[in-house]
Amino acid sequence: MPLAVQKFGGTSVADADRIRAVADHIARTRRAGDDVVVVVSAMGKTTDSLIRLAEDVSSVQPGRELDMLLTAGERISMALVCMALAELGVAAASFTGSQAGIITDTTHTKAKILEVRGDRLRESVAAGIVPVVAGFQGVSANRDVTTLGRGGSDTTAVALAASLGAERCEIYTDVSGVFSADPRIVPTARRLRQVSFEEMLEIAATGGRVLALRSVEFARNHHVPLHVRSSFTWEPGTWVTEEVPTMEQAIVSAVTSDTSEAKLTITGVPDRPGIAASLFRALAEAGVNVDMIVQNTSHDGTTDISFTVPRTELHEAVAIARDLAPKIDSASVLVDENVAQVSLVGAGMKTHPGVTATMFEALAREEINILMISTSPIRISCMVDAGAADQAVRILHAAFDLDG
Amino acid sequence: MPLAVQKFGGTSVADADRIRAVADHIARTRRAGDDVVVVVSAMGKTTDSLIRLAEDVSSVQPGRELDMLLTAGERISMALVCMALAELGVAAASFTGSQAGIITDTTHTKAKILEVRGDRLRESVAAGIVPVVAGFQGVSANRDVTTLGRGGSDTTAVALAASLGAERCEIYTDVSGVFSADPRIVPTARRLRQVSFEEMLEIAATGGRVLALRSVEFARNHHVPLHVRSSFTWEPGTWVTEEVPTMEQAIVSAVTSDTSEAKLTITGVPDRPGIAASLFRALAEAGVNVDMIVQNTSHDGTTDISFTVPRTELHEAVAIARDLAPKIDSASVLVDENVAQVSLVGAGMKTHPGVTATMFEALAREEINILMISTSPIRISCMVDAGAADQAVRILHAAFDLDG
Repeated sequence: MPLAVQKFGGTSVADADRIRAVADHIARTRRAGDDVVVVVSAMGKTTDSLIRLAEDVSSVQPGRELDMLLTAGERISMALVCMALAELGVAAASFTGSQAGIITDTTHTKAKILEVRGDRLRESVAAGIVPVVAGFQGVSANRDVTTLGRGGSDTTAVALAASLGAERCEIYTDVSGVFSADPRIVPTARRLRQVSFEEMLEIAATGGRVLALRSVEFARNHHVPLHVRSSFTWEPGTWVTEEVPTMEQAIVSAVTSDTSEAKLTITGVPDRPGIAASLFRALAEAGVNVDMIVQNTSHDGTTDISFTVPRTELHEAVAIARDLAPKIDSASVLVDENVAQVSLVGAGMKTHPGVTATMFEALAREEINILMISTSPIRISCMVDAGAADQAVRILHAAFDLDG
Repeated sequence: MPLAVQKFGGTSVADADRIRAVADHIARTRRAGDDVVVVVSAMGKTTDSLIRLAEDVSSVQPGRELDMLLTAGERISMALVCMALAELGVAAASFTGSQAGIITDTTHTKAKILEVRGDRLRESVAAGIVPVVAGFQGVSANRDVTTLGRGGSDTTAVALAASLGAERCEIYTDVSGVFSADPRIVPTARRLRQVSFEEMLEIAATGGRVLALRSVEFARNHHVPLHVRSSFTWEPGTWVTEEVPTMEQAIVSAVTSDTSEAKLTITGVPDRPGIAASLFRALAEAGVNVDMIVQNTSHDGTTDISFTVPRTELHEAVAIARDLAPKIDSASVLVDENVAQVSLVGAGMKTHPGVTATMFEALAREEINILMISTSPIRISCMVDAGAADQAVRILHAAFDLDG
């Protein structure tokens, strides 16, 4: 029988009613002839409440203990889903990350999955018992409980799907799929029927919040087809799959925006080999996540280097840049927090060189100034003033005929 | 260094303030030169809330899943206690029942501890890291999570103390020890400095709610001295130890009462061998916990058998008795729900035969009628009308000079 991994996020199991609806859907999937392995997140805002409780108790939160605390959340939701399934006459059993064989490294609060030992889950499925697995958690080689960090439950689901040879991995959430733009910004945005892994990676990396980047990377690397869909309407959502050459190829699939970053510019940097490297080495060693980097051609022997970092890491990045500037004979460090990144994503743009021009013209017509540009074969991102971001998204959505 | 096991109940870790107070006390115990192993319950009413949530979700609650759900509670409290210890500079690590090596049978929701594999805890203590262990939970030979049922956290603490060769097991709670009577009924009741395991067993069995019966049995069998004390005042409480012949021996230590039971009487039972056995075999097979049993001497070839059962099991007990009565040619089954058991407990009464007489005289003076009597070498229990129970406790407390 084909095996489906079904992952339900926090809003999908937020209360008793939603949990019963989830159980009903699992039961229906089984009746339709599929085997199912379920992955659940903690209920609603449980994880946030537990973090607040930890902050109330202590200013020191060792990672091992934070992981022990947070993993209580999925325990509750998975046991409740199993009870709801029992009421429907569906045999089910819950498994912690450890019981499910999710083996991770020892990096508490953001562990990486090293291996999935799926024997217990396989035995459970073979015995006709639906395994309900705690997302977001695993066990390290030291036998300590670990959590996978941001997007962890999606990653658990994809890793299990890969390890168990599932036909598909269904990610249930509170939106009905991946859209051509955020519907709160562009009311006419339409749900995409299908996107490639590469497009989904770019969408996730540039502000699309439906799927975590790392789970998409994992799915691409292990060839796991994803189906992103709603646990409120249960309608078909968006498939994320290998790029199929025969599939109707839109030039641009989606417009995304991201206001979570800030821009730094180091001016008057001597144009000598190794200068940029020393800057980005220092940032990397401090754990600062640099996103976009732009360096213009040198004139008069000096150049400006601009880069963006998450706003939460700005303070540290500025300190490092200010510390380094005099040592590399730079003029100054400029900070701009009032920026947003607007991106076009589409596998079709690889073979359509006019996309960049259309994008720039559309923005210019509305007098939106472009502060920085960065591109990949299937993405163009422009940094603009934060205040113009929503307008830019709407203009580009219209300019590329993405309306539903 | 001497090792203390310190167990903190739900009220002792009910909120952030209490958790910090607990951490402070653990740190102080360490500074005083003792090694410590900590056992914690779930915070406040967490377990009750989880049970209500389960009832909201499903009318079917498989034991395995109920255990998975409830064990989330201790995970939260133990991680928080470790964080609070970290803030005080005390190295600590939390351990689930499974990680702590609490191996149980497979009886979900009321598992029995089969074995404690204490290696990880011993290593932790040797490394100077305070282990904070989840009470109430273990892991079965099937690698499933189990809970120990009522009084489970106390049992975990005593089992660890026995296995690790602890000098003492301190049970912290919201009362300051074991009292000569419930202070809500007898305001002059005094805290007992020391009671024997046998007395504590009788006190726990007859309505004293401070310690669960099974944890006292475990402590007696494994010779673990208990110290019952308050996590609110931190003052010395009551020691529960082997009976020390030299210790000042009170004749009566405590007066207890219990209104949780109901009385059944089967009248006109033929006085033949095997009749009583068939009744109590049937009750045992239905899982009914029979407490007091009284059968008077036979006259005219028939007798009356009276016994008490928890009120929650009364319905089942009555059905069994009514079913059996005609088969054993009994006259009828009488039920009295309006009863209470009042008990005197004291190791000294073994050698003081006048205690029973004094008790009966004191009750008679106040015209409190005795419905049933049952005795052990260190206890006398009388069944009285429920309405007279508190008065009976006060009279007996005064009659035996127990006031503080």
